[in-house]
Amino acid sequence: MDTGRQSNRIRVGVAGAAGYAGQELVRLLARHPHAELARAMASSASSPRRALPGLAHLWNGTVEPLDLDALAEGPAAAFLALPEEASAEIAPQLLARGVRVFDLSGAFRLRDVATRTRWYPKTGAVPGEIVYGLPEVQRAQLLDAHLVSCPGCYPTAAVLALRPLVTAGLVAGDIVIDAKSGVSGAGKAPSERTHFSECHGSVSAYGVFAHRHAAEIEQELGVGVTFVPHLVPLDRGILETIYTRVPPGTTEAAIAEVYGATYANAPFVRLTGGTLPVIKQVAYTNFCDIGWMLDPPSGRLVVVSVLDNLLKGAAGQAVQNFNIAFGFDERAGLLA
Amino acid sequence: MDTGRQSNRIRVGVAGAAGYAGQELVRLLARHPHAELARAMASSASSPRRALPGLAHLWNGTVEPLDLDALAEGPAAAFLALPEEASAEIAPQLLARGVRVFDLSGAFRLRDVATRTRWYPKTGAVPGEIVYGLPEVQRAQLLDAHLVSCPGCYPTAAVLALRPLVTAGLVAGDIVIDAKSGVSGAGKAPSERTHFSECHGSVSAYGVFAHRHAAEIEQELGVGVTFVPHLVPLDRGILETIYTRVPPGTTEAAIAEVYGATYANAPFVRLTGGTLPVIKQVAYTNFCDIGWMLDPPSGRLVVVSVLDNLLKGAAGQAVQNFNIAFGFDERAGLLA
Amino acid sequence: MDTGRQSNRIRVGVAGAAGYAGQELVRLLARHPHAELARAMASSASSPRRALPGLAHLWNGTVEPLDLDALAEGPAAAFLALPEEASAEIAPQLLARGVRVFDLSGAFRLRDVATRTRWYPKTGAVPGEIVYGLPEVQRAQLLDAHLVSCPGCYPTAAVLALRPLVTAGLVAGDIVIDAKSGVSGAGKAPSERTHFSECHGSVSAYGVFAHRHAAEIEQELGVGVTFVPHLVPLDRGILETIYTRVPPGTTEAAIAEVYGATYANAPFVRLTGGTLPVIKQVAYTNFCDIGWMLDPPSGRLVVVSVLDNLLKGAAGQAVQNFNIAFGFDERAGLLA
Amino acid sequence: MDTGRQSNRIRVGVAGAAGYAGQELVRLLARHPHAELARAMASSASSPRRALPGLAHLWNGTVEPLDLDALAEGPAAAFLALPEEASAEIAPQLLARGVRVFDLSGAFRLRDVATRTRWYPKTGAVPGEIVYGLPEVQRAQLLDAHLVSCPGCYPTAAVLALRPLVTAGLVAGDIVIDAKSGVSGAGKAPSERTHFSECHGSVSAYGVFAHRHAAEIEQELGVGVTFVPHLVPLDRGILETIYTRVPPGTTEAAIAEVYGATYANAPFVRLTGGTLPVIKQVAYTNFCDIGWMLDPPSGRLVVVSVLDNLLKGAAGQAVQNFNIAFGFDERAGLLA
Repeated sequence: MDTGRQSNRIRVGVAGAAGYAGQELVRLLARHPHAELARAMASSASSPRRALPGLAHLWNGTVEPLDLDALAEGPAAAFLALPEEASAEIAPQLLARGVRVFDLSGAFRLRDVATRTRWYPKTGAVPGEIVYGLPEVQRAQLLDAHLVSCPGCYPTAAVLALRPLVTAGLVAGDIVIDAKSGVSGAGKAPSERTHFSECHGSVSAYGVFAHRHAAEIEQELGVGVTFVPHLVPLDRGILETIYTRVPPGTTEAAIAEVYGATYANAPFVRLTGGTLPVIKQVAYTNFCDIGWMLDPPSGRLVVVSVLDNLLKGAAGQAVQNFNIAFGFDERAGLLA
Repeated sequence: MDTGRQSNRIRVGVAGAAGYAGQELVRLLARHPHAELARAMASSASSPRRALPGLAHLWNGTVEPLDLDALAEGPAAAFLALPEEASAEIAPQLLARGVRVFDLSGAFRLRDVATRTRWYPKTGAVPGEIVYGLPEVQRAQLLDAHLVSCPGCYPTAAVLALRPLVTAGLVAGDIVIDAKSGVSGAGKAPSERTHFSECHGSVSAYGVFAHRHAAEIEQELGVGVTFVPHLVPLDRGILETIYTRVPPGTTEAAIAEVYGATYANAPFVRLTGGTLPVIKQVAYTNFCDIGWMLDPPSGRLVVVSVLDNLLKGAAGQAVQNFNIAFGFDERAGLLA
Repeated sequence: MDTGRQSNRIRVGVAGAAGYAGQELVRLLARHPHAELARAMASSASSPRRALPGLAHLWNGTVEPLDLDALAEGPAAAFLALPEEASAEIAPQLLARGVRVFDLSGAFRLRDVATRTRWYPKTGAVPGEIVYGLPEVQRAQLLDAHLVSCPGCYPTAAVLALRPLVTAGLVAGDIVIDAKSGVSGAGKAPSERTHFSECHGSVSAYGVFAHRHAAEIEQELGVGVTFVPHLVPLDRGILETIYTRVPPGTTEAAIAEVYGATYANAPFVRLTGGTLPVIKQVAYTNFCDIGWMLDPPSGRLVVVSVLDNLLKGAAGQAVQNFNIAFGFDERAGLLA
Repeated sequence: MDTGRQSNRIRVGVAGAAGYAGQELVRLLARHPHAELARAMASSASSPRRALPGLAHLWNGTVEPLDLDALAEGPAAAFLALPEEASAEIAPQLLARGVRVFDLSGAFRLRDVATRTRWYPKTGAVPGEIVYGLPEVQRAQLLDAHLVSCPGCYPTAAVLALRPLVTAGLVAGDIVIDAKSGVSGAGKAPSERTHFSECHGSVSAYGVFAHRHAAEIEQELGVGVTFVPHLVPLDRGILETIYTRVPPGTTEAAIAEVYGATYANAPFVRLTGGTLPVIKQVAYTNFCDIGWMLDPPSGRLVVVSVLDNLLKGAAGQAVQNFNIAFGFDERAGLLA
């Protein structure tokens, strides 16, 4: 089935292939119609080559220790699913050697220096021009971009749900974003917080007034928000319940029109109107589904936005950005 | 082990013993130091007597078909874990025959007739004097009460968290209550919504602008709220994340003082301050744990309230009300 | 992206598209490179047309009420994910009208009339020639088959694990198959057994000495087995732990050789040797992973076989059979 | 409520109070009618005093660093929920100072020196007389015992199910024990194996032919077994499915009679006959429920045994042993 697939494909590399987002990148890129996965590397220097058992028969390569030179040679594009300080160090070197970079960390997401220094203190100066890779918003800038900073999982769901409303002047009150996330969002490193027996049968709020994704959401919306993430006992998926008020007289039809116009050509945003979406319908896909309910007398609005944190919230969106950046169909390799 | 336990015990009956809250009532009352469980009945008329396998060796009785006469004879108190229309029909008859009633349905919770008619249309007129059984608020009125209407699970968590703040004048903004509930809150009757494969790995919002518990919360607080409940993939427990703003200048210490003073003598409310509580620490207990975080510059306040929906949110609270109403220690039979 | 896809594609229909296996069929066939999904029907006669929200943007058709004539017109192949009695009635009529049938029910799995009558009493006589669709075993017979009876989920995992050993004479003791299944295997109809609160936090054995899949396994192996299935609290996936004894002197290498030779060309069977496979690595894929451990002194052998019950155990395997039957690459549309 | 409770109570201490079994010990002993919890200690020497938030209002003490002198002074009995090497070191010193020891580790379970050295190599020599604390089997020896070695969680379920049959000569074939355990059985220390995202949606077999509980089961039964434990995605509970054959002519009644006679006076063993028990009915209790099904023609027998690994499989059983050893009602403090 791989016969002839290498012709006309973009050679790509993945750094951070052992983590959850990294494994998804390997899975997506190994069977991508326009990519050839030339390298997959894991950041823990000491680890020997190893296979990813869940990917056998899909990808028969091995994960190598991270090696900048090897990553820069051959691949025309590199996907970095690394801690932000590693991304901050490696990305400029890759760019300098002509490799286009799709970074999944927070290293390059915040444009304001003071904000960035506060939330990502280890990331140093920012290299050249960065495109914030939310394709539904920046499709044009992504074409030929060299450094794409892929949004965080929470901001992706929040910004896709709120930006059309803010832009259209339909937000007239405080914004509260109550996010519920599956535990894979916390990464692959074991901890007490992500120990099975602590999460099972429980829900916990965390990062109140202190989560860096709040800064990212505020940057992309241009307004302040109250953002509280929660761990819920499932593996993959985020549901955000967003509360605000619309200006007096705003109708349900006006809201539907704004969303419809914004996402008319967005293959990965699905609008569900008054049938509020649930996590199950987007898990293991690259979709972000958005529904909403308005209480016209009071102007109170509830929007619900769901996505798979490892796909539309991480690896899938990175591949979507790659597709656009290299001029392929946005959906290539993502409709599985 | 039961030798001699019958002396000086209050004879009680349970109607609705086959449901989740009903089974908890049977379990709690079967080993209550001051109660003798004389009758346990299930509402489905056609069902024969049956044992509750999980309660064998704890309670050796059988669940009988619902029979008003049998329930009224002998027991001095009846716990009703029935659909509201059944409670509305039965409770007045039991009261007329001298049986004190602890009702777990919504039949008697709303005092305003129009509101009550809207949300509980099948419940008809309300019998005499009703005490809303939130013991931390109405401890005095509960003593010698004859009809106690036990609060809903969501209102219990919300009112315990918010009422002290509202009363103290510490709420100065919209109130948003984002509730996450385990699936046992939806009862024991199978449905597509509570089918395992639909809930597992998913989260769903429901009842937006249309949940009758919102009316109950607003009644007890005297202010409006936005309330959105969610089903999360666990069995027992509720976590409510509550968002509002406090008046300018309000300090964290002021909030802590209000809570501390309100619940100084409440054995089942535990204040956790800035360490936000999680469901796991209250599941299978009668506690409601409350924590909070304030962002002083903005006055934004986040309160988190957790409880077990079948205990503090249903059967446990009913027994707590019973304890107070009959003059026993509030904690009797509830510290297991 | 769908441009030109209709050329040279096989027109197919799905009956039973509203169930879990049916939805997977729609998802797989909607983006299959060699199929055109012409019809999707649900068996409940009264249901109106409806969309499958999770498939929006992947498949924009609607599910229609089941209509035999419409299913027979146009499609060259029909996938039946129906109750066995419905399959038994419909399949012969489709065959008579030239439609090739891939049946996912148990209607046509058992060859022995008495056994079949015992376990599937409502299925009547069997039409003509049937191929049991376990591609790794019957690849040759599948080519040009007209009625393919797709194996049950439990038998797929068991037969793939055991048949090579039985055939090679490596089974010398009783066979015990302890199967653990996710709840989606019980279908989409709500029931007390599959109610979230009954399954969560629990495990239950069922069908002891009375599960029709045992008869199917015994038919395919030619030997008796003890088979006990269990419901475990997850959605998708089966893990079977298989216990037997090998003849004295059998080495681990001999077992590995038998498996390796049998599955050398099987793209969807992955051998993991002494690293026993887990459900997570096959969920949402069409793979069956098999590992084993031998205790040479005693000759005790433990084999572990895992698959996704809705894919390799149902819809995925049906599509795999379709691929072979129509001469396509076995993997077409299944490596997502 | 604690008024006067200290009179006539046995002063006890808990070492290992921060782990899952240790927390259950604290919870049980804090409200035990005949015990006074004088000390609770955690083994990690560096940890400062800390509260157990889930136990606030139930137990208002703090967990102290482990201190042998403090543990030996005052308490008449010590419960050790420590790693086996710590138990092996501490228990003899406590015994020498007159403290009766209830040990939950594996340090003292195996009587055969060679077997013990193989599975618990760090535990050194065994001190004096040890009673294996399975109360349903050794009730008489427990009275006045000084060192009680509490059984492992898996052996408790297996031995209670199998010993009556073996003793009665009703086992005539190989014994296979397929155990499914909740993840709390793996302890509180985070690891990749117990990371939420690895366990959720998955099942895994482990310890095949290499689990020390197999040796313990074989010791207590006097016959060999094949034992394979599995992790299933739930927190608390074990279900063991046990396969064997009975002698020709054995009837279902004979099996029921053996079980009934053995457990007629066992308050914590519940026999469910042909209604196989499920984990949910024993979780959070000290019960072990046992059911069975016989296929008379073949003599194949399936027994299902369930318990809560932290209670009947650990802390509950230790308290049950304490009750018997000190002459209290076996059920004291355990029927919550």
